[in-house]
Amino acid sequence: MFQSFDVKSAPQFGRERVTALRAKFEALGIDGFLVPRADEYQGEYVPASAERLSWLTGFTGSAGIALITQREAVVYVDGRYTTQLAEQVDGSVFTGGDLVNEPPHLWIPKNAPKGFRLGIDPWLHAGAEVRRLARALSEIGGALVPLDANPLDAIWTDRPAEPMGAVAIQKQEFAGTLASEKIAMIAAGVKEKGAAAVLITDPSSVAWIFNIRGDDVPHTPHPLSRAIIPADGKAEIFLDKQKTGIEQEAYLGQISVQQSPADFLARLAAHSKDGAKILIDPDLTPLILTKEIEMAGGVVVESGDPAKLPRACKNQAELDGSAKAHLQDGAAMAEYLCWLDEQAPGTITEIEAVKALEAVRARVGQSSQNPLKDISFDTISGAGEHGAVIHYRVTTETNRKLEAGELFLVDSGAQYVNGTTDITRTVAVGAVPEEQKKFFTLVLKGMIGISLARFPKGTRGCDLDPLARIALWKAGADYAHGTGHGVGSYLSVHEGPQRISRLATQELLPGMILSNEPGYYRPGSFGIRIENLIYVKGSQDIDGGDQPMLAFETLTWCPIDRRLVVASLMTAEELGWLNAYHAAVREKLMPLIDSQKVQDWLVKATEPVA
Amino acid sequence: MFQSFDVKSAPQFGRERVTALRAKFEALGIDGFLVPRADEYQGEYVPASAERLSWLTGFTGSAGIALITQREAVVYVDGRYTTQLAEQVDGSVFTGGDLVNEPPHLWIPKNAPKGFRLGIDPWLHAGAEVRRLARALSEIGGALVPLDANPLDAIWTDRPAEPMGAVAIQKQEFAGTLASEKIAMIAAGVKEKGAAAVLITDPSSVAWIFNIRGDDVPHTPHPLSRAIIPADGKAEIFLDKQKTGIEQEAYLGQISVQQSPADFLARLAAHSKDGAKILIDPDLTPLILTKEIEMAGGVVVESGDPAKLPRACKNQAELDGSAKAHLQDGAAMAEYLCWLDEQAPGTITEIEAVKALEAVRARVGQSSQNPLKDISFDTISGAGEHGAVIHYRVTTETNRKLEAGELFLVDSGAQYVNGTTDITRTVAVGAVPEEQKKFFTLVLKGMIGISLARFPKGTRGCDLDPLARIALWKAGADYAHGTGHGVGSYLSVHEGPQRISRLATQELLPGMILSNEPGYYRPGSFGIRIENLIYVKGSQDIDGGDQPMLAFETLTWCPIDRRLVVASLMTAEELGWLNAYHAAVREKLMPLIDSQKVQDWLVKATEPVA
Repeated sequence: MFQSFDVKSAPQFGRERVTALRAKFEALGIDGFLVPRADEYQGEYVPASAERLSWLTGFTGSAGIALITQREAVVYVDGRYTTQLAEQVDGSVFTGGDLVNEPPHLWIPKNAPKGFRLGIDPWLHAGAEVRRLARALSEIGGALVPLDANPLDAIWTDRPAEPMGAVAIQKQEFAGTLASEKIAMIAAGVKEKGAAAVLITDPSSVAWIFNIRGDDVPHTPHPLSRAIIPADGKAEIFLDKQKTGIEQEAYLGQISVQQSPADFLARLAAHSKDGAKILIDPDLTPLILTKEIEMAGGVVVESGDPAKLPRACKNQAELDGSAKAHLQDGAAMAEYLCWLDEQAPGTITEIEAVKALEAVRARVGQSSQNPLKDISFDTISGAGEHGAVIHYRVTTETNRKLEAGELFLVDSGAQYVNGTTDITRTVAVGAVPEEQKKFFTLVLKGMIGISLARFPKGTRGCDLDPLARIALWKAGADYAHGTGHGVGSYLSVHEGPQRISRLATQELLPGMILSNEPGYYRPGSFGIRIENLIYVKGSQDIDGGDQPMLAFETLTWCPIDRRLVVASLMTAEELGWLNAYHAAVREKLMPLIDSQKVQDWLVKATEPVA
Repeated sequence: MFQSFDVKSAPQFGRERVTALRAKFEALGIDGFLVPRADEYQGEYVPASAERLSWLTGFTGSAGIALITQREAVVYVDGRYTTQLAEQVDGSVFTGGDLVNEPPHLWIPKNAPKGFRLGIDPWLHAGAEVRRLARALSEIGGALVPLDANPLDAIWTDRPAEPMGAVAIQKQEFAGTLASEKIAMIAAGVKEKGAAAVLITDPSSVAWIFNIRGDDVPHTPHPLSRAIIPADGKAEIFLDKQKTGIEQEAYLGQISVQQSPADFLARLAAHSKDGAKILIDPDLTPLILTKEIEMAGGVVVESGDPAKLPRACKNQAELDGSAKAHLQDGAAMAEYLCWLDEQAPGTITEIEAVKALEAVRARVGQSSQNPLKDISFDTISGAGEHGAVIHYRVTTETNRKLEAGELFLVDSGAQYVNGTTDITRTVAVGAVPEEQKKFFTLVLKGMIGISLARFPKGTRGCDLDPLARIALWKAGADYAHGTGHGVGSYLSVHEGPQRISRLATQELLPGMILSNEPGYYRPGSFGIRIENLIYVKGSQDIDGGDQPMLAFETLTWCPIDRRLVVASLMTAEELGWLNAYHAAVREKLMPLIDSQKVQDWLVKATEPVA
């Protein structure tokens, strides 16, 4: 299993650990210290060696930060996690803070004493956050104090070792563009900006540029590594040789110099001499690196990560790989949904449902000779009222059965070497109330609205977002999340800059893979989400039109529960999409399914709706 | 008639006038001078006395600026006006500049000699424009030179007098809120910001605050005036007594001090003494005023025009007035469209069509005892290929007949004391090709998409804009203008901050009046636009929903040409809207129509479409 359902929190150690941390403050000349969820790579998934927030407080959520002073210990989380925080931390030691409305930089000027000196580990904080903290502290005559070593690490005696997952070369068949070409393209960009080098700190960017994958953190197959790409001269990749074998080292040696991560700061300093301009992405670059550049005599030039946009715009090989990965994943999903339909209501639990899905994906991966490398995120498996918890993760404590008359929401994804998948289906368990079918249909209308959209060049994600919501809005409903996020190519399932949401100002460009996942949630009652992955096709002329339009192509092929569709609420165009989609699902998946039972199920599940 | 069709341009004087202007430069110590279309009030419509650009160059468009140096005379216009510019100015004297891609502040660093001194009339330039010019000039070691008097005015010997249109009190019945309350609300805002006073420079804001209307410029019934509203003490309105009679002066005297415009700078200086903070809207405040505040020892504080948002959110009296004005206007439009249908194809011209419409509005205004005060803008009356020119204004030179098989687009509006209207209808002249009907239907779908929208609090105009375009996008088509603009209450037909467009980030708030006017234009062939005015209703619960939603209420009642609707392209919901709209049009307008012929026409024009 790539996921666990245990409650990992250890709140009982909070008091002694906070006391030990505070004992370090005086010698360091600080009045407080920040412990963020973020790691040295500013990643979504962090290795066990960087789970500092959870080790100190017991809180295991995916976003948060603790501010420890001699008197206070505040853990800031967002609205998703307020309940979980109360359950996971020792309330006699920690208080809860509001990460959205009063994060540390707003809390400090109101609550910290004048002259407050706040320690931080400069590997763990970047760009705008550092600026906001420094400004807040200067308001009260205090100071931000970047420390040479993290005092928490000093007291974390049984801290796990840094991960040394094996690195694999991502074959040209799947990558589509040679690493040497990507490096040359980025070096040319550096030269054009009159800079000496660009610093690449996002491990997914390093993985994309060098066409390698790794096994250091859960669910995202990038190795933790950094790179420096100069305008002239060889690219340098900082990747521990414990992660590479002879083959990988020979490969990397052809296109770059493989350096030890221990030499990173020294090499960065060497590149920064004599006023050299070093390009960095301010949102991704820890404070320690910008300071190193400046101390070595270099000039920091803020610029975007040069891999971000080309990585988002998949080439044909990546799109072909993704399409194949999705067919395989669709076959697994069909087998799984067939199995789910066979289970009598009230017999299986949310955890059993997760295990069954992962097992099917693993089995189909084996028989297809394209193994399930990982899941792309912890499966969301919510029955009844749990479906309404947008980021629900079932644990042994919350686990419950799928009961008759309920909706069951399952949001999951897989990592295959040829692509990353992410799919949500909401299915009926027994006979579901008409009201829930109505909202299922409204959500489906939104999902079809995006699928059918055509749009001119220059259209941004925010321009399409309302098309997914208007049917719900007309019914007095909405959903409190974006409509879609970018997805990587055997990389992170949450990839920028492309997305579909109210605030998504990135232009949608050909090759971008996105999720299309409107939803509806009635707290305490039921939840619905329907999600396909789609990608932006190149501009195409339309008969009778006068300008070419962009459109989406669907990647995900898997039945949508037709028992939940209220046909009378759909337009002819929408029904046409649904029926054509199901016809294609049947045609595409049938050859991949060996079981007669699943084949029969698929035929029924893809019958036209009228 | 409130409009003329003559070509007013006088290009033959360009050479001598530019020569005379240049002769002034040496004594003023300048190397060049800017002549903008803008007047001292930064308004959309300017009085004849401020038509400096047209007097100098011959160019009569509504946007542009001339840069005159000893060697060059460049007239900058946007894409709408490049053809018109070439026709209206003497090409041996003037060259054309690109107002969008290379306006003066971008032209200067590339083309002006080092140390270039650019004269401006500081009454005619505001905020960001001044900053951009100053920065561009400083790049080449030059300077922006605000002049004490406009040198063009010195050579414009037959310059018309400033307008002295009569001021009328806008009755409480239509205004809904007493001027004293508005002044108190604004003064409280000034106090809250710790400022001494706010400067009101937009004549529409002065008109709205003081509940007065005027007759100084075409089509917008505000008097040219300014005001100073202090945190404490009486408001001051700068309004020439030639514009007011005993009644108006008594009214204004109760709520303010009526000052002479000649005393404005001195009074502004008096308010600015001793470091007083003066609030200004940087986009609306000419440079001379910010300089005056600073010279008098005051501090300029940039802040929005405090009347802008409350003026946009109409109160119930304003909405009721607008609804009545629209019914009257709808009755006039019905009579007009009936007359239009009676004219055989190939018999009437675009100008005759405009004259007939204005005459009907005037007649219905008389018989309703609510006279047509003005049109709200020059009527757009375009047959066939002229319909594709988005800002087409027919002249004696372009005038043509409405021929069989063509679409005729008529976009017009009226000013009544109880409201401002703006309506576009596109009608068939004889039998129209199927392709044009298809696009008419797609435009109609977009217009209905906005009409039927419901949306949560916080929704911005940009969030709704795509709903008006998606049907066209799917057909490979789009339109190159926004979907809707704000509309005033017996004030400007183009009012901010509310609008519906890709860039409209203003939240839509209850009471805002907007146009809803998608279109489609095939250059050289045909043009379509369908426009109703709508307003934002307060949030309302929806049966079965879980959050209240905002919605639009329609203000415009007038048949949409059903002969052009292709029913098979419409959804049931869209047909439902159209038929319900036409039923309401019939019911609302019938009692207002006295002619049996028009009544019969109305019945036919509002038959259901199936």
